[in-house]
Amino acid sequence: MTEITSQHVNESRPHHRHLEQSRAQVIDLLSRQAVERELVSRSENIKQDVVAQLVARQQQAQLAQRLAGFHPADIAFVLESLAPEARQMAWQLVRPEQRGAVLLEISDAVLRTLVADMRPEEIAAVIRHLESDDIADLVASLPEDLGHEVLTRLDRADQAEVRSVLSFPEGSVGAMMDVEFVSVREDALLEAVLRLLRRRKNDLPDENTNIIAVDRSNHLRGMLSLEQLLLNEPEQTVAEVMTHDPVFFFTDDLVKDAVAAFEKYDLLSAPVVNLHQQVVGRITVDAVLDEIKERAESEGLRQVGLSEDEDLFAPVIQSAKNRWPWLALNLLTAFVASRVIGAFEGIIVQLVALATLMPMVASIGGNTGNQTLALVIRGLALDQLGPAQLRQMFTKEFSIATINGLVWGGALGLMTLLLYRDFHLALVIAAALLLNFWVAAAAGVLIPLALHRFGRDPVMGSSVILTAMTDSMGFFIFLGLATIFLV
Amino acid sequence: MTEITSQHVNESRPHHRHLEQSRAQVIDLLSRQAVERELVSRSENIKQDVVAQLVARQQQAQLAQRLAGFHPADIAFVLESLAPEARQMAWQLVRPEQRGAVLLEISDAVLRTLVADMRPEEIAAVIRHLESDDIADLVASLPEDLGHEVLTRLDRADQAEVRSVLSFPEGSVGAMMDVEFVSVREDALLEAVLRLLRRRKNDLPDENTNIIAVDRSNHLRGMLSLEQLLLNEPEQTVAEVMTHDPVFFFTDDLVKDAVAAFEKYDLLSAPVVNLHQQVVGRITVDAVLDEIKERAESEGLRQVGLSEDEDLFAPVIQSAKNRWPWLALNLLTAFVASRVIGAFEGIIVQLVALATLMPMVASIGGNTGNQTLALVIRGLALDQLGPAQLRQMFTKEFSIATINGLVWGGALGLMTLLLYRDFHLALVIAAALLLNFWVAAAAGVLIPLALHRFGRDPVMGSSVILTAMTDSMGFFIFLGLATIFLV
Repeated sequence: MTEITSQHVNESRPHHRHLEQSRAQVIDLLSRQAVERELVSRSENIKQDVVAQLVARQQQAQLAQRLAGFHPADIAFVLESLAPEARQMAWQLVRPEQRGAVLLEISDAVLRTLVADMRPEEIAAVIRHLESDDIADLVASLPEDLGHEVLTRLDRADQAEVRSVLSFPEGSVGAMMDVEFVSVREDALLEAVLRLLRRRKNDLPDENTNIIAVDRSNHLRGMLSLEQLLLNEPEQTVAEVMTHDPVFFFTDDLVKDAVAAFEKYDLLSAPVVNLHQQVVGRITVDAVLDEIKERAESEGLRQVGLSEDEDLFAPVIQSAKNRWPWLALNLLTAFVASRVIGAFEGIIVQLVALATLMPMVASIGGNTGNQTLALVIRGLALDQLGPAQLRQMFTKEFSIATINGLVWGGALGLMTLLLYRDFHLALVIAAALLLNFWVAAAAGVLIPLALHRFGRDPVMGSSVILTAMTDSMGFFIFLGLATIFLV
Repeated sequence: MTEITSQHVNESRPHHRHLEQSRAQVIDLLSRQAVERELVSRSENIKQDVVAQLVARQQQAQLAQRLAGFHPADIAFVLESLAPEARQMAWQLVRPEQRGAVLLEISDAVLRTLVADMRPEEIAAVIRHLESDDIADLVASLPEDLGHEVLTRLDRADQAEVRSVLSFPEGSVGAMMDVEFVSVREDALLEAVLRLLRRRKNDLPDENTNIIAVDRSNHLRGMLSLEQLLLNEPEQTVAEVMTHDPVFFFTDDLVKDAVAAFEKYDLLSAPVVNLHQQVVGRITVDAVLDEIKERAESEGLRQVGLSEDEDLFAPVIQSAKNRWPWLALNLLTAFVASRVIGAFEGIIVQLVALATLMPMVASIGGNTGNQTLALVIRGLALDQLGPAQLRQMFTKEFSIATINGLVWGGALGLMTLLLYRDFHLALVIAAALLLNFWVAAAAGVLIPLALHRFGRDPVMGSSVILTAMTDSMGFFIFLGLATIFLV
């Protein structure tokens, strides 16, 4: 299929398959170059050295040219895919005027390795021509001291704008918004708007699909799409053709609410206002996409306690340490579960089958609890768990736990009966599984709710806490019932 | 903060906080109405009945009016939040002309409960005026027989278009694309394009931010943004001002690649072509947002084996059964782990501390493996694991496992020494943890890779398989070492 396709493709068009091939080639060439350079620098034959260096320099010029033809996002991808030495070499090949845009697209971890070798003036020079909200994003990603140093090296006007963006708390619409936008008075004629746009032709902001309509005190009045501007008569006023009730945001709204509104109402851009309803910025759909992408990418990592986005090539020691808090927590919960078992060592010696069977009660309970957990976390994310729904969810999860506890407890009991020919042991394990399913249902609903209520991210850590509970309680219930009924 | 804000808000503007309040009110009213109606229908006093029904009818008319003012996405949210009886009542209150748009926004599970009471003709009437790709989406979500019935009740022309969209495999750009778009010849003058748009004013497709430029045989030539159309002279041709190398897709490209391209290149829309590079459709950013949202929402559920999106109010028995495949798999893996322990019952009787300690080796190994797993799954999703990166990742994860195995194995050994005063037992558990960390690192890298290589979703099931391995191997290594060195 791919072969047939390729024949028809006009090579000048950036179909993503070709971009991928091209990117892969460049990554490969850069990696090899770095290795060769390493070899040359170690070689002692000076003549060979000079020739090799000439060849290398020519190759580098070619690579620089290919990189220059890439979209900044593709250059960022190439840099992220390279090992540290090759990455530094490649970074030198990126044209200075592209570097700012590349830094915007790159992950925080790789950003920090790139700027590690740059002086504050160099960084400032690279990011100076970006929009002030983008500069603010970058400065916020730098180590605090360095960010401050860079900031003081910008123009005074830029500094003020960047500082005002930085003053909004992380996760608020204010911190995410774009401060460059086109606004017009609602009583302007469409032909005047057209003239304004043509005059500003060369410095219009990106993604300019909507123009914000304001009154004389800059209060939000409506939104004028380019389509409305195109399709109506030039003699009409903005107010006559604009959308009067656009979705808008306050600077202190949460980014996640803005993201949800974009998804729901299919927005391309939306105005941001201050408490006096004066327009201070806008949010565009491309920023929303980036936001969703970042959240989705980090979700899997947050679940296992890795909140920082880890550079694939970060030093081993640092990566190992990143995992310590989680390991420490896990050691602690495992220790508690182990102490629960320790309390029952007497009965285990009498009936060793208990040791063999107990992990099943714990493990199956943990897994069923994680299913409830996933449903509740999704319900919370979708904002669908009001008090009435919660009661219903609780009842439902308990009913499911009861049904499944009976069905699978029965199955486990039957298995035990076949293996050990001990009817009482079979009854005990069946009852223990049912009870642990109830623990799992309660934990699966309550843990994420509690984390959410206390303003914590329910994705992070809820699974460890749940598993700790179903493990400890599973062992306790099973060994406890065994102590009561089997000895 | 909210109070201050509210005073300044013009009530006519749909700021999302007000939408939420308004939605919550309507959900509450509808839920109560359903309960009241239930009570009235049970009451035996006929007089009271008539009065109550009159009141109810008036309330319903008011509710219908409020619903009519909502965005279809908000109506969908209300319906999803209601219990089945209230949901059916509310659905009757939605105006017929809004129903199609609401069905488009609603989750598949709730969609099926809504159409359960509708005849095929009714469904066809509701969706008839939608765009054909939207009709195809809805038809694909219906049970197969019903979908077929509905399809035969549409106009012939619509039927043909819907069938052609349905013929593209799920997950392909063809199945996702929008078949309504505006295209112009590249040699047309901009003023002609403007005239065309004005003539079609009332039937332009939504989200029309770009016009596709084609040659006389409908081959893709470029993209003309509304901005380019506005800012240039009417006497210029499309070819003079258009973007000549827009990102485009083939119908058989994967949706996930298209989504990645939209994120990366900040696209608002992109043309879709057939193998002959003729334009057959387009993809818009709002469809991409919906796609990302659906993927992100289902990710947590897929991880725990719940692939279907579950209606919060689905019948208990059905929800319980949804979880059975996963429970069966888990029972099986837990059984294997249990049999591993069973093989060592002899030594456990001699040294019962082994039973107490063994779950720690298994549990900590499983957690560390899940961290590696999350990193590899993210790497795969971002397309960042080429052969060179894989080797590096493998080496790195093994180094981390070694460091952390030594550190935390040491900690666990020390704990064991303090508890049991048995130096050999402490050494055995430390060694077992280190070895199980290696198992975890190998499993964390290899399992998702294998699933990916065989075209399976690495998110689904990889964590169960990994935990099964670290459990069984953890027990085996620990009890095995104990057998060799402690008896």
